[in-house]
Amino acid sequence: MHFRDSKRKVDYVLAYHYRKRLARPPPGPGSPERARRSASLALVSNGGTGKGCVEDGGQRGPPGGGVEAMALSPLDALEEEKRLQREEFERNLVEAGLEIEKDPENKSQGLSFVRIHAPWQVLSREAELLKIKMPTKKMYEITEEGGILKTLNEIWCKLTEPLQPQVPQQENTKMKNLSYPFSREKIYLYNIKDKDTFFDNATRSRIVREILKRTSTKARNSMGISTLIANNVYDAAYPLHDGHYEGQNDDMNERKLLYREWARYGAFYKFQPIQLISGKQLLHLGGYSFAYLSCKTALDILISAESAGCGRLGGICALVIPSKEMCDQRNAFTMCPLCDKFCDYWNLSSACATARASHLFDNPATVFFSIFMALWATMFLEQWKRLQMRLSYFWDLTGLEEEEEHPRPEYETKLLQKKLKNKTITTDNPNEDEKEKLTCSDRMPGYAANFGLILFMIMLTFSAVFGVIVYRITTAAALSFSTNETTRSNVRVTVTATAVIINLVVILILDEIYGAVAKWLTEIEIPKTEKTFEERLILKAFLLKFVNSYAPIFYVAFFKGRFVGRPGRYVYVFKGYRMEEARGCLMELCIQLSIIMLGKQLIQNNLFEIGIPKLKKLFRKLKDERTEPKEVDTNQAKDPQQWDLDYTLEPFTGLTPEYMEMIIQFGFVTLFVASFPLAPLFALLNNVIEVRLDAKKFVTELRRPDTVRAKDIGIWYDILSGIGKLSVIINAFVIAVTSDFIPRLMYQYAYSQNGTMHGFINHTLSYFNVSHLKAGTEPENSLFAQDVLFCRFKDYREPPWSPNQYEFSKQYWAVLSARLAFVILFQNLVMFLSFLVDWMIPDIPKDISQQIKKEKSVLVDFFLKEEHEKLKLIESFMARDKRKHKSGTKSRRSRAASFSQSTRSPKGSFTSFSSQHTVV
Amino acid sequence: MHFRDSKRKVDYVLAYHYRKRLARPPPGPGSPERARRSASLALVSNGGTGKGCVEDGGQRGPPGGGVEAMALSPLDALEEEKRLQREEFERNLVEAGLEIEKDPENKSQGLSFVRIHAPWQVLSREAELLKIKMPTKKMYEITEEGGILKTLNEIWCKLTEPLQPQVPQQENTKMKNLSYPFSREKIYLYNIKDKDTFFDNATRSRIVREILKRTSTKARNSMGISTLIANNVYDAAYPLHDGHYEGQNDDMNERKLLYREWARYGAFYKFQPIQLISGKQLLHLGGYSFAYLSCKTALDILISAESAGCGRLGGICALVIPSKEMCDQRNAFTMCPLCDKFCDYWNLSSACATARASHLFDNPATVFFSIFMALWATMFLEQWKRLQMRLSYFWDLTGLEEEEEHPRPEYETKLLQKKLKNKTITTDNPNEDEKEKLTCSDRMPGYAANFGLILFMIMLTFSAVFGVIVYRITTAAALSFSTNETTRSNVRVTVTATAVIINLVVILILDEIYGAVAKWLTEIEIPKTEKTFEERLILKAFLLKFVNSYAPIFYVAFFKGRFVGRPGRYVYVFKGYRMEEARGCLMELCIQLSIIMLGKQLIQNNLFEIGIPKLKKLFRKLKDERTEPKEVDTNQAKDPQQWDLDYTLEPFTGLTPEYMEMIIQFGFVTLFVASFPLAPLFALLNNVIEVRLDAKKFVTELRRPDTVRAKDIGIWYDILSGIGKLSVIINAFVIAVTSDFIPRLMYQYAYSQNGTMHGFINHTLSYFNVSHLKAGTEPENSLFAQDVLFCRFKDYREPPWSPNQYEFSKQYWAVLSARLAFVILFQNLVMFLSFLVDWMIPDIPKDISQQIKKEKSVLVDFFLKEEHEKLKLIESFMARDKRKHKSGTKSRRSRAASFSQSTRSPKGSFTSFSSQHTVV
Repeated sequence: MHFRDSKRKVDYVLAYHYRKRLARPPPGPGSPERARRSASLALVSNGGTGKGCVEDGGQRGPPGGGVEAMALSPLDALEEEKRLQREEFERNLVEAGLEIEKDPENKSQGLSFVRIHAPWQVLSREAELLKIKMPTKKMYEITEEGGILKTLNEIWCKLTEPLQPQVPQQENTKMKNLSYPFSREKIYLYNIKDKDTFFDNATRSRIVREILKRTSTKARNSMGISTLIANNVYDAAYPLHDGHYEGQNDDMNERKLLYREWARYGAFYKFQPIQLISGKQLLHLGGYSFAYLSCKTALDILISAESAGCGRLGGICALVIPSKEMCDQRNAFTMCPLCDKFCDYWNLSSACATARASHLFDNPATVFFSIFMALWATMFLEQWKRLQMRLSYFWDLTGLEEEEEHPRPEYETKLLQKKLKNKTITTDNPNEDEKEKLTCSDRMPGYAANFGLILFMIMLTFSAVFGVIVYRITTAAALSFSTNETTRSNVRVTVTATAVIINLVVILILDEIYGAVAKWLTEIEIPKTEKTFEERLILKAFLLKFVNSYAPIFYVAFFKGRFVGRPGRYVYVFKGYRMEEARGCLMELCIQLSIIMLGKQLIQNNLFEIGIPKLKKLFRKLKDERTEPKEVDTNQAKDPQQWDLDYTLEPFTGLTPEYMEMIIQFGFVTLFVASFPLAPLFALLNNVIEVRLDAKKFVTELRRPDTVRAKDIGIWYDILSGIGKLSVIINAFVIAVTSDFIPRLMYQYAYSQNGTMHGFINHTLSYFNVSHLKAGTEPENSLFAQDVLFCRFKDYREPPWSPNQYEFSKQYWAVLSARLAFVILFQNLVMFLSFLVDWMIPDIPKDISQQIKKEKSVLVDFFLKEEHEKLKLIESFMARDKRKHKSGTKSRRSRAASFSQSTRSPKGSFTSFSSQHTVV
Repeated sequence: MHFRDSKRKVDYVLAYHYRKRLARPPPGPGSPERARRSASLALVSNGGTGKGCVEDGGQRGPPGGGVEAMALSPLDALEEEKRLQREEFERNLVEAGLEIEKDPENKSQGLSFVRIHAPWQVLSREAELLKIKMPTKKMYEITEEGGILKTLNEIWCKLTEPLQPQVPQQENTKMKNLSYPFSREKIYLYNIKDKDTFFDNATRSRIVREILKRTSTKARNSMGISTLIANNVYDAAYPLHDGHYEGQNDDMNERKLLYREWARYGAFYKFQPIQLISGKQLLHLGGYSFAYLSCKTALDILISAESAGCGRLGGICALVIPSKEMCDQRNAFTMCPLCDKFCDYWNLSSACATARASHLFDNPATVFFSIFMALWATMFLEQWKRLQMRLSYFWDLTGLEEEEEHPRPEYETKLLQKKLKNKTITTDNPNEDEKEKLTCSDRMPGYAANFGLILFMIMLTFSAVFGVIVYRITTAAALSFSTNETTRSNVRVTVTATAVIINLVVILILDEIYGAVAKWLTEIEIPKTEKTFEERLILKAFLLKFVNSYAPIFYVAFFKGRFVGRPGRYVYVFKGYRMEEARGCLMELCIQLSIIMLGKQLIQNNLFEIGIPKLKKLFRKLKDERTEPKEVDTNQAKDPQQWDLDYTLEPFTGLTPEYMEMIIQFGFVTLFVASFPLAPLFALLNNVIEVRLDAKKFVTELRRPDTVRAKDIGIWYDILSGIGKLSVIINAFVIAVTSDFIPRLMYQYAYSQNGTMHGFINHTLSYFNVSHLKAGTEPENSLFAQDVLFCRFKDYREPPWSPNQYEFSKQYWAVLSARLAFVILFQNLVMFLSFLVDWMIPDIPKDISQQIKKEKSVLVDFFLKEEHEKLKLIESFMARDKRKHKSGTKSRRSRAASFSQSTRSPKGSFTSFSSQHTVV
């Protein structure tokens, strides 16, 4: 954790593999000398004595390299080039004020670490530059709600005490330190007890990272550490973890605390220590992600209870009434055969079980539940906004401004290329050069490729879905030919199960592919900054993954069974294969949804997330063992430093996958909640596991991520609210089109003789004259072919004895009208209610907005006091000064006057400053 | 325009009526002395010599009043009380640093003015307090777009040169002064040529207003001038206009300039000098309102052209085809009688002209036009947001923060009452007293009254609409009895015309009532601040006026003719009065809309706006002449000062009516554009007039309003965007339900034999067996009753020969489904497109956001330079100081060190300042 002097803290580590030209020891004066030098370097930094040495080494490096380059093999030349870049980079770091310590490169090849320490001067300078808000001496009280809210809050705290993580609290939770962007000149404002610990580890590493990012090497386009890592000059760059997460209580570090209270499965019932996660260990964005999960989990519990209650109750009520008729053996509805030739007529009462199950979800309660869920989505987003605001207040991120970002290295390279190209054409236009940027025409190919490929990918998804449909049809048909009785009776189950599993596998595979494609496509676009890169990547990845995940579900919900045709004029996919029929649409949708959602969550999130890193680690270990000689291991194993340990961990690659998971899950929960009321429950279970899983990953399996300041979750929120809006219309359609809600309502109030549901099944079935079946499609070995004159099928069509036989009947159109009217009503009602909810709940919680106002005024007062004291001092000095110089010359006096005017400026700048601040 | 010394500018004027107790001259020593004193006051202010005198007067006042109070009549006591309050208030103003000048009160009663001048000290102090941004010495260039955009812009400027108002431009439009909140300590930053003109008139009057608002008098709850005016202590308080708006070019003032270039009808074709309006003469909110009108006008021109083109073209195409059949005399459709007993069967071809006219608007082009208009609404709102941002940038209003407002006097009074009440109950709870505020329960009666009354008002509107319907039905029936042939043939025209006019009158009357009711209701609610008061008032007024304006139109669009019943089973409103039938629904809607929109705009906006103020003025003049003796007039007429002239003008009462007009107009343009494509044209014409009318009102008829800073148009924007959203669904319904678009489409593609429209009319008419008419409802004096077996009526119903005769036919349900499907499709498509438009157009124009960034960096640089120079000076002084004091004592040295540390603070505060500023 420290340099060898055990004093200076290691804030950042760069790791690289080196290979020395040991095969050719004599060729130049370089290597032996260098070996000696690097040995000395190991103990030296620019803290005091080492500075000259490093510079010395750096200056001597290049000529040596230049001379030797002739004699080197290409591989060695590359190696040498890298070494030079490293040396130059480290020299620049030292110039920037950082202190570094290197391991001796005393083996032929191996892993070496550059450890970086940021001294106080550097930290304070950069903190000022980055406007990092630091706590000042001033504390102020957080006003609490009075009255009932307070007592309620206390009761809540008492009740949830066993659920609270055991994290050492600040002594006084009711006070908050006033924070103010760090300024060296106002150093007296801050509560600096010890210069070594004033900046916490996260801030220190962030500052070092910032320096690493902007330090350039000679090659003009290699700006910062990321380019160097991309060019393999360095292997990795990471801040260190706080210590081991295991072990006894001998020394408690934050990582261990996090592990104990957060990242174990054993802690699954506890709240998350958000403050600890975000403030210290992880980046804020990560904090947000976990806070989001928390928030969602809490609301999910509510919803699950609601949904279970609602679903069950409605289901039980609904079970009794309408399916009675269907399951009644006396009403023998002879249904038309489900496939040509091999299927027989069948009795509707045989599907009784399915119908019963289906009614569990398909009942009037579902409608209210859907409205409720749509409002829940809005409410959730509102609550999230408020929580986010609250967090950003407590993390001192309010008023954080977007900084101008450096262009990405890729963008700069491209720009350079363009400049060079332009120069070769028009050399006499130097003033235009500065404003050069990539225009639309430069990006056109990128955009075109994007558009084309995304379209292609979506087509691919659709064809995958279609493929599964064809699989289902053909397999069903093939299995129907089977002579085995059990096979034939289980056709439907077999086919559905296998098809869904195929679907799932396809989704999982395509998901991985799409992730890669989206990334590649965004690279092609050459976005200017890291932020736009991220945003575009997310949008693309989301679009692709969304289509991929939901396409089969959409098919089942809205299209399956709509293109069957009718007996006597079926729609055939290929010659002889009829389109599949839908039976209990909502039920099927429910199965589809549950399997895909569960499967995706279990396999992708959990298996992949645990398994793949483990595999990767194993693979790397094996590789390392193969390539590296044994001797190294013994050396390292003897004394494994924190940087060695951290190096073996996986690098942190961003939070996008975690967010994507959550968003897709949010989609499952909201989009089809009407058809699958258990989705929130599944989501809840998944989230409870997911939190600990991700936590474990972050704490134990990944290198410590760099801290990033963020005010909100950015584009993810837009996507979430987009899904929320989409869910309204989709739920409306699910209820209206997929479920039996509307036909049943219509029957009860319009067609029923006595206002009951009696006769509903009969009403939904149309008659078909068996003699109208096309030749060759009649059932072959029918048991009761002789008795059947008319068979029934589920549709509203004119009976055979009407003049327009088999046309859609009046009922069909009436029901359709009712369905569509319901969609309009539902959509507009819910949209209006959501709008109302959005409008009524303020985005910033009232106490927080008051708190922010208060903070401003406290800040102004605080400065007033501090500055006032200084001003007094100056004035007393001035007075003394005047008394003495009373006998000065005239020119002198004018000088003094001008000085007196300027010394008054502190007050002036303070005033403008304070007024400035209230504007912030 | 100036005090009598012709130097000090009059920044604000208070006017009051006084009445002296001349009837009783001897009772005290007061009146003669006071008369003398006030005569002396007339020439005196606290500028130099007068201060003591005023205070003297003030101090002598109260005891005199107290003694005399016994002998006074109640009226005189009130008068005396007012006088005392005035004196106290004026004394407080003088204490606040303002300079005042009073007229001598040398008549028994009359009008007197208090003229207020704000000297430099007051102005600079208040400007600092109010953080008014003032231009600094620094200028910076506004970056322009390069390339094609620049040339396009230049061409545009050339083309529109005759349309540009001839306003003296700043010399260099490409440069902008860097503005910075005024600070006395940084006075050297600002470009102060003359202290008298540095603050312009608007700023000066705003500052005085601010002081007037917060100056209190003895009575604890009379805080500020508004309470005094409410209590009739003063009559009026207003800033002065810049001069006369008429007259020759001898002295050009801004008011005259505004009048010449903006407020004349003759200038109707010119652009508006927004900069001049907002910056100098009027408040920014007003500037926004005119900018809004400008923006809307520009876009309206586009739309009108589009709509005219679209409507006409489509209309002409449509005229030929489907109405041919209808107008063909050979296809004699014998229609069922339109009323019982007295109406005869009639031939459809007689309605040919109506049909033709109707097709002018009811054609497929309308659909695309509607989509286009919905997108236009979104686009308009986006463009408005951008323009608003641009304006607030040029007006230096970016980063303006909402200030905490004072509670309204009414709120404070109520609070005081509550406190007093509470104190009588619980006297031993002093610490609770401070946090006292009005709780929900205090406001409950107000809210309940609000809810109840608004509901009642809406009911009232509905019953008014229903009343007009009843009028229409009964009159139509009554006129049908008429024996006069011409009366009977013109029934429809007469009834429709009179009904619409009644509607219009009702709307106009209710509008006025609702305005008053909304205000009263909001008063009842006791909102805390002026801002919430405004917002709630606007919301309520909008809700009521919206319902009022649109209820009859909604009725015609969606309900008229839907409850007619069918021949043989008509729906009767009262005994014997059939519900009215709809004929050419869209056409009727169009007439209704055009009359209401035009009438409302013409009468309400123009007649009321011109007429009522004129009448008021006349009335006041008459009243004044009656009450005041002639002598005063001669005195005033001789030498009419600016304050006399301005006093005769109407007071400014806020912009709410102007905004309300615009919003309601926006509703007309967007909500029913499908049925009335000429609405934008009407709106355009109205706006062109409206701009000049309002301008004239502001420049010539109203007192100069107080300047108000505002970043945006506040709640109006929310209402606008709400209307935009509502318009989507309403237009969808108008097209689907009211127009014939869907049935025609359905016929062409589903029912037509040969894919043409031939037979469409026949298809939409149902058959009715004449013998099924109820006894007593047959036509009495029918010309062809013998020949008629079946009559036709417009509906989709089963023919008499079907088993379910007169039930809705299958076609009915099919068409209904299509209509509803269209609504869903239209709504979601347009919503999606709007969303896309909203997403693609950035809210802040790119050049402005760049400009703002640049301004920040320029500001920091500017300060850096200024502070650097000062720092140098200090350092040189320090060095000199050190050289001299080298031989000082030890204690002295430490003192100097502490000083050296503190003198470094300017740089420190600068640094933090600059860093602060970039955060802003």
